[in-house]
Amino acid sequence: MTHSAIDVIRAKRDGGVLSDAQIDWIMDGYTRGAVADEQMSALAMAILLRGMTPPEIARWTRAMIASGERLDLSGVDRPTVDKHSTGGVGDKITLPLTPLVAACGAAVPQLSGRGLGHTGGTLDKLESIPGFRTTLSNDEFLAQLSGVGAAICAAGAGLAPADRKLYALRDVTGTVEAIPLIASSIMSKKIAEGTGALVLDVKVGTGAFMTHVEQARELARTMVELGAAHGVRTVALLTGMSTPLGLAVGNAVEVAESVEVLAGGGPRDVVELTLTLAREMLDLAGLPDADPAAALRDGRAMDSWRSLVRAQGGDPDAALPVAPETEVVRSTVDGYVSTVDAYLIGMAAWLLGAGRARKEDGVSASAGVLLHRRPGDPVRVGDPLYELRAEDADRIPAAREAAAGAVEITGAPPALVPLIMERVG
Amino acid sequence: MTHSAIDVIRAKRDGGVLSDAQIDWIMDGYTRGAVADEQMSALAMAILLRGMTPPEIARWTRAMIASGERLDLSGVDRPTVDKHSTGGVGDKITLPLTPLVAACGAAVPQLSGRGLGHTGGTLDKLESIPGFRTTLSNDEFLAQLSGVGAAICAAGAGLAPADRKLYALRDVTGTVEAIPLIASSIMSKKIAEGTGALVLDVKVGTGAFMTHVEQARELARTMVELGAAHGVRTVALLTGMSTPLGLAVGNAVEVAESVEVLAGGGPRDVVELTLTLAREMLDLAGLPDADPAAALRDGRAMDSWRSLVRAQGGDPDAALPVAPETEVVRSTVDGYVSTVDAYLIGMAAWLLGAGRARKEDGVSASAGVLLHRRPGDPVRVGDPLYELRAEDADRIPAAREAAAGAVEITGAPPALVPLIMERVG
Repeated sequence: MTHSAIDVIRAKRDGGVLSDAQIDWIMDGYTRGAVADEQMSALAMAILLRGMTPPEIARWTRAMIASGERLDLSGVDRPTVDKHSTGGVGDKITLPLTPLVAACGAAVPQLSGRGLGHTGGTLDKLESIPGFRTTLSNDEFLAQLSGVGAAICAAGAGLAPADRKLYALRDVTGTVEAIPLIASSIMSKKIAEGTGALVLDVKVGTGAFMTHVEQARELARTMVELGAAHGVRTVALLTGMSTPLGLAVGNAVEVAESVEVLAGGGPRDVVELTLTLAREMLDLAGLPDADPAAALRDGRAMDSWRSLVRAQGGDPDAALPVAPETEVVRSTVDGYVSTVDAYLIGMAAWLLGAGRARKEDGVSASAGVLLHRRPGDPVRVGDPLYELRAEDADRIPAAREAAAGAVEITGAPPALVPLIMERVG
Repeated sequence: MTHSAIDVIRAKRDGGVLSDAQIDWIMDGYTRGAVADEQMSALAMAILLRGMTPPEIARWTRAMIASGERLDLSGVDRPTVDKHSTGGVGDKITLPLTPLVAACGAAVPQLSGRGLGHTGGTLDKLESIPGFRTTLSNDEFLAQLSGVGAAICAAGAGLAPADRKLYALRDVTGTVEAIPLIASSIMSKKIAEGTGALVLDVKVGTGAFMTHVEQARELARTMVELGAAHGVRTVALLTGMSTPLGLAVGNAVEVAESVEVLAGGGPRDVVELTLTLAREMLDLAGLPDADPAAALRDGRAMDSWRSLVRAQGGDPDAALPVAPETEVVRSTVDGYVSTVDAYLIGMAAWLLGAGRARKEDGVSASAGVLLHRRPGDPVRVGDPLYELRAEDADRIPAAREAAAGAVEITGAPPALVPLIMERVG
């Protein structure tokens, strides 16, 4: 066993291409525990530094899917389409998007994750709604897809267990940032989930995992190819993540902002991205004539949201938790906001308690940052720029310091960059 | 802890230079178990693929030495000088060389290893002498250096424990072949052993770990610099290892050949390398006027050998074990021997039982290969080429097959390459 693991590691280390048999063997061995963590981490580092060919990535993904169960959504009475975002600050798009697309006739089998570090997680946000359950059985998930047309819950342990194990290993061995491993991790879960189509939102910028557009484009292409190879119609958008999405960054505050969007209002960028992704999803689902903008205006999207929340045990009319401690940060100059740094605002929200440092930590539902100004907005001395919110006043000073350099103000209005940067598909 | 380990891994992964503090921290953490095996293996792979600067290698070596004790040989009443070979087939040079150099006035603190795979180990060879003990306490080791002037034994567990742990990890993670890690592994043990000077025999060729002279030269230079940085006068020779050294490959058979050399006879190449290394060692020990060739002729080297064997519990007059099963392989053509492939002969000896597949296996004292012809020798049909020896006849067929292509015969005498290729120091 050891001997073969070494052969596979050496082959990749020396710049070779792994065979299908080698990939299947090592993934199976790793899942069963016959290939040791220290062997897989050496291989992950070799993959990070040597790369993988498209056929290798396809086989690696296939082997991760084969390590567990693959859901069968063929019994769902509508076309299925999902969305995945690589994660950003204030990225609550899943919340308005999922019920919106369901309201337009598709079914959205949304398996989501939790936040770690400076980016938030959809499940953490939803759990700020009193009663909301993020754990569904496979049967509940399937029934809700046919009934409500959408479900947002945690992926079960049976889906791609090799990815679960490998992700935890990469997290502690400096091997997260390998495009083949990122792409196969995301796509193995989405393919195993059984969706018929998939729209990827690949974030680029200071608040995103990928800070350079070239990397993001390569990741997007790799994932689109993987989807195609597995019969999942896949499109990717590269979207900007140097500024937080919307005005709210946290858990309950992002739910509140999502409800505003579902009610036909909300910040322009959140609405724009929600509608753009909805149109891509509906096209892939074979529903090109659906009109998501109308569904936001006429209340169908909101109805769908309320059904989804109720189906998962939540009360859509319950008050969301509000943080007792707040601090407003104000401008000391006149001018125009040129930058609101997503990474720094994300860090501040994390320090306020909205995110977790370690997987086993809990999060504060009410903590977060509320922006009062966005890039391009004029400001005068004394105008509020943003507001820090926490359950515990002790959390404020560190967050204040983290956010201190986040907002830049210039004398002239800045040039604004478009939110939607490219489409790969 | 985890966080810092990831920072160190990432720094090397991204092509950076590790700081002294990073190296000290990770080596200490790894020795104590705070840095996990899967983190160290990812770092080892990053080092293998990204390399290390000379200052990094020096610090890495220093940190491995600092992980354990460092012997103090200042109480030994002669200048100390050691030899290390990177390992080859039929490489018994330590056996005649150590007592020879002691006979010429230096003390040789030889800490040796066991064989793994197709190359033999000095300790395995010596244990074929009835009664010979390869485990000495530090006190026994020091007393024998002053008394006999030489000791050949296993390194104690207290020397460079970080290297011991890291070597076992590299062995199963495809990270053995990194020059910074090879050089620091060898030199940390030799420096911790306390020798004042060191001659390195870096083998190059089919039977060696390094098959290309460029790699071997880089390894030699790296080790010579490490020695100098730690106050150990160090010289390296690059020597050929495409043909086995001498005629005997195995354990008892190599002891017997070494005794022939000590008696003033033995194969020319073994004598040449023994004398060349002895002169280098004596020069470094400040004894340039010593005459090792005379010490071989006049019996002083043999006396020294007998003292060494007796001091370690062995009987220099005891009969060595002889294998009951032998098979002679003969030439089927007339011509000249052009090649005797060291790797294939080493594999055959290993298959006959002279080496071990896993660390925990034992070895056969009597098994091995005896060459009857060497490159350049004329042969006629029916002449013996080599002889396979084993304790168990079942071992013969696989060894026969492994050795089948080892000897090449050509019509004209081949051009012979010199054994001593380069000197680095």
